[in-house]
Amino acid sequence: MKRYRWKIGFRTCIPTTARGSVIGNTIRPDRIERDIECIAACNDSTPDLGYSRPTFSEAWAAARDYVIEQASLAGAKSRIDAAGNVHIRPDRRTWEEPLWLSGSHLDSVPSGGKFDGVSGVVMPLELLRARIDPPLELVIFAEEEGTTFGMGLLGSRAWVGRVGRDDLARLTNRHGESYLEAGARYGVDPDRLDTERIDASRYRGFLELHPEQGLGLWNDNQAVAAVGTINGRRQYRIEVEGRGNHAGSTRMADRRDPVAAAAHVIAGIEVIGRDLSEGCGHTVMTVGRIAVEPNAINVIASRVGLSVDFRSPDRALLEEGERRLKRLTEEIAVDRGLNISISSEDDQPPEPLDAELVRRLVEAAESLGVRLPTVASGALHDAAIIAPYLPTSMLFIASRDGISHHPDEYSRIEDIATATRIAAATLS
Amino acid sequence: MKRYRWKIGFRTCIPTTARGSVIGNTIRPDRIERDIECIAACNDSTPDLGYSRPTFSEAWAAARDYVIEQASLAGAKSRIDAAGNVHIRPDRRTWEEPLWLSGSHLDSVPSGGKFDGVSGVVMPLELLRARIDPPLELVIFAEEEGTTFGMGLLGSRAWVGRVGRDDLARLTNRHGESYLEAGARYGVDPDRLDTERIDASRYRGFLELHPEQGLGLWNDNQAVAAVGTINGRRQYRIEVEGRGNHAGSTRMADRRDPVAAAAHVIAGIEVIGRDLSEGCGHTVMTVGRIAVEPNAINVIASRVGLSVDFRSPDRALLEEGERRLKRLTEEIAVDRGLNISISSEDDQPPEPLDAELVRRLVEAAESLGVRLPTVASGALHDAAIIAPYLPTSMLFIASRDGISHHPDEYSRIEDIATATRIAAATLS
Repeated sequence: MKRYRWKIGFRTCIPTTARGSVIGNTIRPDRIERDIECIAACNDSTPDLGYSRPTFSEAWAAARDYVIEQASLAGAKSRIDAAGNVHIRPDRRTWEEPLWLSGSHLDSVPSGGKFDGVSGVVMPLELLRARIDPPLELVIFAEEEGTTFGMGLLGSRAWVGRVGRDDLARLTNRHGESYLEAGARYGVDPDRLDTERIDASRYRGFLELHPEQGLGLWNDNQAVAAVGTINGRRQYRIEVEGRGNHAGSTRMADRRDPVAAAAHVIAGIEVIGRDLSEGCGHTVMTVGRIAVEPNAINVIASRVGLSVDFRSPDRALLEEGERRLKRLTEEIAVDRGLNISISSEDDQPPEPLDAELVRRLVEAAESLGVRLPTVASGALHDAAIIAPYLPTSMLFIASRDGISHHPDEYSRIEDIATATRIAAATLS
Repeated sequence: MKRYRWKIGFRTCIPTTARGSVIGNTIRPDRIERDIECIAACNDSTPDLGYSRPTFSEAWAAARDYVIEQASLAGAKSRIDAAGNVHIRPDRRTWEEPLWLSGSHLDSVPSGGKFDGVSGVVMPLELLRARIDPPLELVIFAEEEGTTFGMGLLGSRAWVGRVGRDDLARLTNRHGESYLEAGARYGVDPDRLDTERIDASRYRGFLELHPEQGLGLWNDNQAVAAVGTINGRRQYRIEVEGRGNHAGSTRMADRRDPVAAAAHVIAGIEVIGRDLSEGCGHTVMTVGRIAVEPNAINVIASRVGLSVDFRSPDRALLEEGERRLKRLTEEIAVDRGLNISISSEDDQPPEPLDAELVRRLVEAAESLGVRLPTVASGALHDAAIIAPYLPTSMLFIASRDGISHHPDEYSRIEDIATATRIAAATLS
């Protein structure tokens, strides 16, 4: 569904008087705020419906152009790699010398918020503008969300070679265009994909800033945190086979109702998730999808399918959770005389981030008088893709009420500025 | 989807030697069994996929013709009323004199069983054939199941005037034909609908035989039961509003997960249903439909909708169940800090059947040495439509394992014969 296209492009929102003053020698929250607003104005939707920047849309390209233009005014050069990611370095730096890499993404989910991805691009942009000459390359990864082409982290995965030309030719957007076709207008070049990959010799490490997308920091009144691990994720499909029958004429005692059995499985999963989260607060277990057959008001269902999403930074907790999940389903199956099967759909191990970089972030924060706790990331980020190749960490900023992928998403500008100051003191 | 059409028509399955011997002076199980098989052969599907006789299909018409022909060989005449229901009386009876009415339906759900409806038509057919001269009219109601035109009990409702010409012109089958259009080939005549209604002066009462569609009789090793009440039915829609969020980054303690809340509602509904069924075994409460938004593996849902189907022959239990259901949802909403609304979708009071007719059935069974318990019907039947107009009851026969609306549906021929003998001793 194509919505009314709101003012695409940032030029409507930059006061002309500001154009000449984009370089300064300190981190400036007002400049960060203006970046956030100008990128928000690059919108495929109307603001009341949130912010929509599908990858390779005009709104997305306008946001990318804004960052390139701001960086250029600050004396930086840019290039677009074969996968469509933007790389920006200070003019005085070569493309070969080892710099720190920092960035995130500008594409959004449909009707998303202003901060997801954007704040992680604006942070290194502000570092380039502040007259501190950081040894820094800014990166804008393409298609992080996966809502345009159906697979997340595509730009970073393609850059490290974890997806290839065939994948990018197969994945299509809602217009039926492949990533290669739609991206051709914006620098994607399949012929250079195999050669233009990440070259670790050109980087000292990778730092990504991102909103937490959870309530932890906000509720703890904590502005910023370092990310020590990206959670492992196991996903399961549970199938409960009962005995379908007439809802009116089958007595309660005679039922093998898979909906009732599934309710006990879901309640038990919540208990397991809560128990394990006492060992580590970042451990979570979720049933997000339910499919009932035949799903009719007057029929006892014959079958219920459930999805389970289970994350933890701790491999031992992942093992324990899986054991408890299997025991739970077995017990309910025996108790109720029906069949419950459980199958693994996904198993991504926890991705520990670089301890040395985390230590440097904490020290830099201390030198600025900021306490920087170390947390785990529940969500996946481009940082998880880059971590096997470069020393990598992340900075999380607090998300108001934990709201994410929603127009109400909000993070404090001051928190972005604080994280930027920590990055400035770290990336040297 | 149109399946391969199996041999439609009964002539393939009647041995020619049987043609001359359709009249006998006793209830004969072999004749009942042949009826069941001949009607099963009138099938829009292949037998491995069960039995499909959509209303106004060739298979349905062939089954109807079989019954008319068998009755005609036994010396009975037939006519089709304006709504498409078939009426059959012994030749020697007028259409005006008060007779007992007995019958059921020949239409089936897609891929249904052999017995649902059919056994209730075969029973009065056997009474007409046995040389006992019953004061009996056989009726075949059209579109009982509601799976062809989307509303159940249509033939009986039209006959009593509870649905009219406009309704029948609006309801369509999957070919887009209205009930009036599709039925025109089989005797439906909208011009006669208003005048050709049920006339209570022509009937002594109505008796319908039907498989129980539940496990009660089968598990109690009880062949037949009289039906004293058709359950009242209340249906509700429950909406659980939670707080959608990222499944990976929202800590267990920070969640307002409507799926987990809904699981506790479902588990509580089962407890209420079981508790109330101790007061009356025919009281049942079912959640058959669940709708989760957005229903994605990695998203904590924002909203869950549940359906509740609640039946009891006892008005006081219906009241108590509704009170407990409301208290359950209120408690879970308060406990979990989210909003749960409950709204009524349907409220049909219990339909008490005729106590005098039930008493006569029980006495007649006793005279045959058969114990006849009185049960409630959980499902709706044409008898519920006829009950306000004529003294009405039903005979239930046991359903193996309670399986209904499925190719594996099975009832014992001997049980149909026993019920037919009870009817013969009652309907005089």
